[in-house]
Amino acid sequence: MTAFTLELTPRFNETDALGHINNTVIPGWFEAGRTPVFEIFNPLLDLQRWNLIVAGYNIAFKAPTYYGSVVTITTEVARIGSASFDLRQRCWQQGKMTAQAVTTMVHYNYDAECSEPIPEPIKAALAAHMVTN
Amino acid sequence: MTAFTLELTPRFNETDALGHINNTVIPGWFEAGRTPVFEIFNPLLDLQRWNLIVAGYNIAFKAPTYYGSVVTITTEVARIGSASFDLRQRCWQQGKMTAQAVTTMVHYNYDAECSEPIPEPIKAALAAHMVTN
Amino acid sequence: MTAFTLELTPRFNETDALGHINNTVIPGWFEAGRTPVFEIFNPLLDLQRWNLIVAGYNIAFKAPTYYGSVVTITTEVARIGSASFDLRQRCWQQGKMTAQAVTTMVHYNYDAECSEPIPEPIKAALAAHMVTN
Amino acid sequence: MTAFTLELTPRFNETDALGHINNTVIPGWFEAGRTPVFEIFNPLLDLQRWNLIVAGYNIAFKAPTYYGSVVTITTEVARIGSASFDLRQRCWQQGKMTAQAVTTMVHYNYDAECSEPIPEPIKAALAAHMVTN
Repeated sequence: MTAFTLELTPRFNETDALGHINNTVIPGWFEAGRTPVFEIFNPLLDLQRWNLIVAGYNIAFKAPTYYGSVVTITTEVARIGSASFDLRQRCWQQGKMTAQAVTTMVHYNYDAECSEPIPEPIKAALAAHMVTN
Repeated sequence: MTAFTLELTPRFNETDALGHINNTVIPGWFEAGRTPVFEIFNPLLDLQRWNLIVAGYNIAFKAPTYYGSVVTITTEVARIGSASFDLRQRCWQQGKMTAQAVTTMVHYNYDAECSEPIPEPIKAALAAHMVTN
Repeated sequence: MTAFTLELTPRFNETDALGHINNTVIPGWFEAGRTPVFEIFNPLLDLQRWNLIVAGYNIAFKAPTYYGSVVTITTEVARIGSASFDLRQRCWQQGKMTAQAVTTMVHYNYDAECSEPIPEPIKAALAAHMVTN
Repeated sequence: MTAFTLELTPRFNETDALGHINNTVIPGWFEAGRTPVFEIFNPLLDLQRWNLIVAGYNIAFKAPTYYGSVVTITTEVARIGSASFDLRQRCWQQGKMTAQAVTTMVHYNYDAECSEPIPEPIKAALAAHMVTN
């Protein structure tokens, strides 16, 4: 299993009036699940040297996510391009996948406001977490 | 112009350490922009009779969205199926599109936990807001 | 009426499983209501020149705040000290006060990491919004 | 040490443009820290039988809370009344207290919309987590 995993406890203020976790909360969980990927690009998570930007994500909700039961976020690399890459992230609760997203991230220079090639060592580090199933 | 529009003032707590609106905030703005669509299905927004569920969304970030300047969310109907439909939503700031999403909504019976055909009068009401460009 | 006022439409993702607006949302609304106060200290809301910090707040919930009905946030100045001041903020829905907070703000130099005296012209601008009832 | 403790990893979307965790985020963390208290009143965290309401909280920010370093939330009981009780909660990061809140909770019957006496066994369970310092 090469996926990064993050365990989260859903918070009461993440529920909505339908009694489930609101759909707009899950992108935040997936962002939290990307922390080890951020660390590949920025080992100290230095906010002054941030070098990733989100180009977009495609998220599908498969089942409700509930309050009162732990959630596991899995994060795998689905594609490695020259300056961008895709992550496949899944949200699991009690053995069931409740949401899945593919997120496109870009290696980005915030000062120059442009994308930059992903260095080879970083590509190799990402490749160790490539989707296997 | 058949699009629904919503004006929002970005909130300070919606920024992140990069100094822009965080990407995870925009799905919440798009949810807010869907209110007139919720009202087509549920005119009094009665939480006890909620009948829509989000199947997923595909969101692309085109440019940073900033604090300190009003945002307009436009919402149009992109597809009307038998039990589901797609909305195209865009976030605009100072004349520039900063994000776009296509969201798939399902007409849903929360008691029976299943989708239901969209009644014809509702289809007609949605059709009045069909994407034109 | 010298209070600053802000109209807000509660968002679906601000509800919680009890069917009301979650208590943790209201501090964010009050922060939004402070925007005209931020502008007194920082007319262009320039994030690079931010000069206020929140020392704390005392918030009381008087009644549930509901989805589906507009909210008005009122903001008044309750105290002006040498480097800090207090704001009294209230959340109103359908004529009823649902929450009230007193927030202490400090005029703050983020570079020097210390408080600074509030200039007299700013004190005068604040004084025009002093609590009257 | 009788305090309940919760470890949290600050999320990127909880930062704001000042580069710290936004002040409006901390009440949500404190709510998360109250989960073991919720379980004393409602062991299965059954949302249909929720029996607590927040009357208010008084929160003080002592120091910035940063992204990139784990946070510990401690929760202790500061007062036990007939139908209400106070919790003292603190947020710690790298050995430093960054925020403290006292929150008043009421044992509440949502159907009858009124407070109810706290049963003696629950008072005893709360008393085991009384503030000691």
